[in-house]
Amino acid sequence: MAQITGANACTDLLAITSNADLYVISVPDAALATVVSELKMTNAFVVHTSGTMPMEVLRKFEHFGVFYPLQTMTKEYELDFSEVPLLIEADSASYEERLAYLAKTLKSKFYHVNSEKRCQAHIAAVFACNFTNHMYHIASDILKQAELPFDLLLPLIRETARKIETDKPSNIQTGPAARNDVNVMQTHIDMLEDPVYKEIYQLVSKSISTQALKK
Amino acid sequence: MAQITGANACTDLLAITSNADLYVISVPDAALATVVSELKMTNAFVVHTSGTMPMEVLRKFEHFGVFYPLQTMTKEYELDFSEVPLLIEADSASYEERLAYLAKTLKSKFYHVNSEKRCQAHIAAVFACNFTNHMYHIASDILKQAELPFDLLLPLIRETARKIETDKPSNIQTGPAARNDVNVMQTHIDMLEDPVYKEIYQLVSKSISTQALKK
Repeated sequence: MAQITGANACTDLLAITSNADLYVISVPDAALATVVSELKMTNAFVVHTSGTMPMEVLRKFEHFGVFYPLQTMTKEYELDFSEVPLLIEADSASYEERLAYLAKTLKSKFYHVNSEKRCQAHIAAVFACNFTNHMYHIASDILKQAELPFDLLLPLIRETARKIETDKPSNIQTGPAARNDVNVMQTHIDMLEDPVYKEIYQLVSKSISTQALKK
Repeated sequence: MAQITGANACTDLLAITSNADLYVISVPDAALATVVSELKMTNAFVVHTSGTMPMEVLRKFEHFGVFYPLQTMTKEYELDFSEVPLLIEADSASYEERLAYLAKTLKSKFYHVNSEKRCQAHIAAVFACNFTNHMYHIASDILKQAELPFDLLLPLIRETARKIETDKPSNIQTGPAARNDVNVMQTHIDMLEDPVYKEIYQLVSKSISTQALKK
């Protein structure tokens, strides 16, 4: 992002210049209040990148907003911003336009949302990404115990992610819980050794079955 | 599969010919015992396609085995068998070779496994596919409530499925539970209206945090 926009990335608060068009604070939520309180230049346009924190934590600055990238990032992978939807919000329409302009420069899709909707989008992202990845983790753990390679699941993982591109998740749900096949589910629960995995299996299956009955 | 192998698909037990090289019974687990008991030709090689049922439910036939496709299938999508890993098992090495030959004809990757390992692979598939799809469903539900489009999540879903091709799920876990960010998690739990979604959020987050601490 710094490369495309000619920005300076900076991890030392004392090294911050005082004449930037926009300041982006990208720190863990728990550190945000401290960083805000230590920043001296209040005559500035400052945004944070949190999914959860309200925009108003930045109200000490003359203009403020949020620039939240809804994507999973890991140090090892370089990010292509055209694959990062941005949720933007600012204290005024004209400053929101500045964020929209930045999003366009980065070739990102962007959405204007208020703080509450952004938080809902973040919760949805936790389910769709973090929890999904944990389902992969549990699957890999079970296969490891059975001395089977994780690669076995890659076509299935690909296909599950592909199907969602064109249809609603409720339409393409398969498996024992969707069929309410209680015998298969009980066999699986009995075979699972880890008590937390057992609990997750039961709870998520119950939720799938309830959903299937509503259709 | 019938097209590639010159087989006949058949849904009427009375219409089954008596001279096939291989009979494939592909019915829900709960119907398998009934179908087996009604089949007259015992001098035959018969397999089922279940992930969970033991091979021995077919022991009344002279030769028997399992031909389990580890892939998610929905009526609307045509299946490319080269994207379907097959778990095979038979009552003897020479009949297992016949199933391996069939898998090769279909250009599928195949794995020799016993009934217990097959069942473990099926449980892993339930987590990696059915539960993952349910996480997408919950995410879509939350976005719908917030009047945001599901499309917003597609880059995130793609990226999560892509990362798993080259790294272990535990290495690429992100999100509030992986950071043990209790404030964000509590905010999310408070905002979730559905009590089952609340419970899933708490349980899966606990499991992710426990896993992160082990690293």
